[in-house]
Amino acid sequence: MSQRPLGERLALLTDLYQLTMAACYFDQGMREEATFSLFIRKYPAARSYFVAAGLAEALEYLETLRFASEDLAYLKSTGLFQAPFLDYLEGLRFTGAVRALPEGSIFFTDEPILEVSAPILEAQLAETFIINAVSFQSLIATKASRSTVAAQGRPLVDFSLRRTHGSDAGLKVARATYLAGFSGTSNVLAGKLYDIPIFGTMAHSYITSFPKEIDAFRAFVRNFPDHTTLLIDTYDNISGARNAAAVAKEMEARGERLGSVRLDSGDMTAISKEVRRILDDNGLDYVRILASGGFDEHKIARALADGARINAFAVGTKIGVSADAPYFNIAYKLVRYAGRPVMKLSAGKATLVDQKQVFRTFGDQGKMQGDIIALRDEAGPAGVPLLEPVMADGRLTRPRPTLSACRDYFQDQFARLPEAHKALKDPVPYPVTLSPGLEALQSRVIRELRQRELGEN
Amino acid sequence: MSQRPLGERLALLTDLYQLTMAACYFDQGMREEATFSLFIRKYPAARSYFVAAGLAEALEYLETLRFASEDLAYLKSTGLFQAPFLDYLEGLRFTGAVRALPEGSIFFTDEPILEVSAPILEAQLAETFIINAVSFQSLIATKASRSTVAAQGRPLVDFSLRRTHGSDAGLKVARATYLAGFSGTSNVLAGKLYDIPIFGTMAHSYITSFPKEIDAFRAFVRNFPDHTTLLIDTYDNISGARNAAAVAKEMEARGERLGSVRLDSGDMTAISKEVRRILDDNGLDYVRILASGGFDEHKIARALADGARINAFAVGTKIGVSADAPYFNIAYKLVRYAGRPVMKLSAGKATLVDQKQVFRTFGDQGKMQGDIIALRDEAGPAGVPLLEPVMADGRLTRPRPTLSACRDYFQDQFARLPEAHKALKDPVPYPVTLSPGLEALQSRVIRELRQRELGEN
Repeated sequence: MSQRPLGERLALLTDLYQLTMAACYFDQGMREEATFSLFIRKYPAARSYFVAAGLAEALEYLETLRFASEDLAYLKSTGLFQAPFLDYLEGLRFTGAVRALPEGSIFFTDEPILEVSAPILEAQLAETFIINAVSFQSLIATKASRSTVAAQGRPLVDFSLRRTHGSDAGLKVARATYLAGFSGTSNVLAGKLYDIPIFGTMAHSYITSFPKEIDAFRAFVRNFPDHTTLLIDTYDNISGARNAAAVAKEMEARGERLGSVRLDSGDMTAISKEVRRILDDNGLDYVRILASGGFDEHKIARALADGARINAFAVGTKIGVSADAPYFNIAYKLVRYAGRPVMKLSAGKATLVDQKQVFRTFGDQGKMQGDIIALRDEAGPAGVPLLEPVMADGRLTRPRPTLSACRDYFQDQFARLPEAHKALKDPVPYPVTLSPGLEALQSRVIRELRQRELGEN
Repeated sequence: MSQRPLGERLALLTDLYQLTMAACYFDQGMREEATFSLFIRKYPAARSYFVAAGLAEALEYLETLRFASEDLAYLKSTGLFQAPFLDYLEGLRFTGAVRALPEGSIFFTDEPILEVSAPILEAQLAETFIINAVSFQSLIATKASRSTVAAQGRPLVDFSLRRTHGSDAGLKVARATYLAGFSGTSNVLAGKLYDIPIFGTMAHSYITSFPKEIDAFRAFVRNFPDHTTLLIDTYDNISGARNAAAVAKEMEARGERLGSVRLDSGDMTAISKEVRRILDDNGLDYVRILASGGFDEHKIARALADGARINAFAVGTKIGVSADAPYFNIAYKLVRYAGRPVMKLSAGKATLVDQKQVFRTFGDQGKMQGDIIALRDEAGPAGVPLLEPVMADGRLTRPRPTLSACRDYFQDQFARLPEAHKALKDPVPYPVTLSPGLEALQSRVIRELRQRELGEN
């Protein structure tokens, strides 16, 4: 039942230009060390911080990257590559170093999430997969963390699998939302692979396959008497709530307790109040109300502000695709090659040069105060350095933390971020500055590039 | 190098409730045939039609669905399931029938994309994967088809892999965009798996790793003299264009021809005109201009309306995540069980009952005129029936068409859709009506359900 390692299955999951550029580096004899830096340029809609996720997958890819014979045969068939380069690819392994923010870290625009230092060919080849892995999981973890802010301590469960962008996304959403504070997922394979608690309710089809709704409820609680959630909106939320209450009373007579009822359509605020009343009138104050249907941080916040009597949320589509911001403006840029700091000047897309470190200062009660982006070896900046060495010579330098440990780390870090930066709308920008050393080098490199490439004085 | 079959690798890629409901069906002895119908409720932003895609993956999953021993061990470990049900799952195969729109079909809201008829347990279990597979690829194919409308015949290439939602999404975007008329992809693994043409240019990191931009250009065309694209915006588009022109003249002296230059930042319309002039002034009218950077149908249309001199577009993020509409309001609903038409009444989410067929009429020059959604066996509706039997007794009823054949089918069908329905903004709604038989049955079932569940007269 074993699968081929990730980096071997997905060696060709890259952009063609990574391989054509690699062929040029190979033929030019360009083997010197390059450092690439991964960072996000801008906050999308209403965001003011990011949650780092996806590092484990990126490292697994680097550790196991190799081109299988069938991959090399395909590359040969394109007619683009010469035999010596293909022979070189056959023996290629990632031999470089990675420094990164631990998964669950809070970070901000322009701050390196990770830096890869390796012979340029290896560091270049890894670009596409590294961006893909880190960008998506960080996107979802960020969105999920905002939803936990909105829910004010109420449990959130990931129900997004049917609407995620493919199967891999379904798994990664379950992982990233759990990392960022969700209670679990409906995704069974994610539960198995990542050791995440799994949850489920029932579908309308289940209800409609029975002659009557109440028969469907009775059959379900007979099979699953513990922690069961009954879906009550198939025909009408109110008649559904009455049927659920009747079944809950039957369960009480057997010494059992109904877990919750689920709302999935209509005006959730009004309905939740009415359903709560029906349950309470029947002495079922212990039965909780779960709501699903288009929830994200914005809809959760509105419902709770309106006084909705909802105890937990099952969130799907809008979290699973990060609907209000379905991508990050993220880049993996060469910042140093052969000991020389480099950058591009493209309009609106200039990058920070050279190998860097981020220093964070903390104030009262351990709350985050501000970050400084500095040159990696620059003396001076106060604060805790955030990027840690995680890979050297192509091997992990420390055991991979469990997902549960990453989740705990996130909780601790997120608690240190002042509330003003977590606001769902118009958050206060978090202070990030550049160190004097980085400012000076940046100016010098821009000046030199303009002289050399544009003929400026 | 063989992988386990899709349905075996991903049997647990489902929502937990599919398995708990299955356990109830099992214990209740509910083995009768159910039909589920997959359809989209509403058009997202500015859409007025959909392109069907993803059927091949859904069918592959159904054909190979089986629970491996490690999956059953995991399910057992949850403590939710009894031994007889787990034993049943061990031998479970999908034995049902599927009728579907061929990939590449044009369809509209409320029309079934596919209908699954099988013992209810099997048809229910398949829900999550089927929605996931068909929804995402159709989402991307629809977005891609709109981009081809905007591009007015100019080639489009998928460059989205780094920003797609995970690795599976990257492959599916390459497939769905090619199906819907793109010329190819940068995604090498997609090229190998799906036999799609692959394309590439070069990255800014490649340029910045050389002492000077022109050295980087020279090295690249030495390795790849044919069809090469030089990225010219690393330092400045205009100086980059002059360097590219110089290299193109050197190539001419060797009897070679530069393929294109690529713009990736700044005001594309203005820059493309200036770059075109520089190229033409050097007698390089054959060198084409490729543009990338945030293009989707809207940005392509604006650029061309403004007179941009762009010959081809590399489109990435906004297509790869369908940024303006990153999901469909899609549902897989039970419409018939044990010979009985069923539906739910949930507010705003009522569904069309029973097994259905869609009939399409064509007018002058084979243009599409209108569709009728009817009961499957209803006599009367004029037009061509669109849903075709593709699986019976769990086996394909016909060889799977190649992706290339699906792409040709899409081109033919899309040409039949009148232009008014393809408008990128405020498109004319396409006429879809319900047949008299479906209308009558729908009314009858609603009336009966209201009497039975809500006590109405």
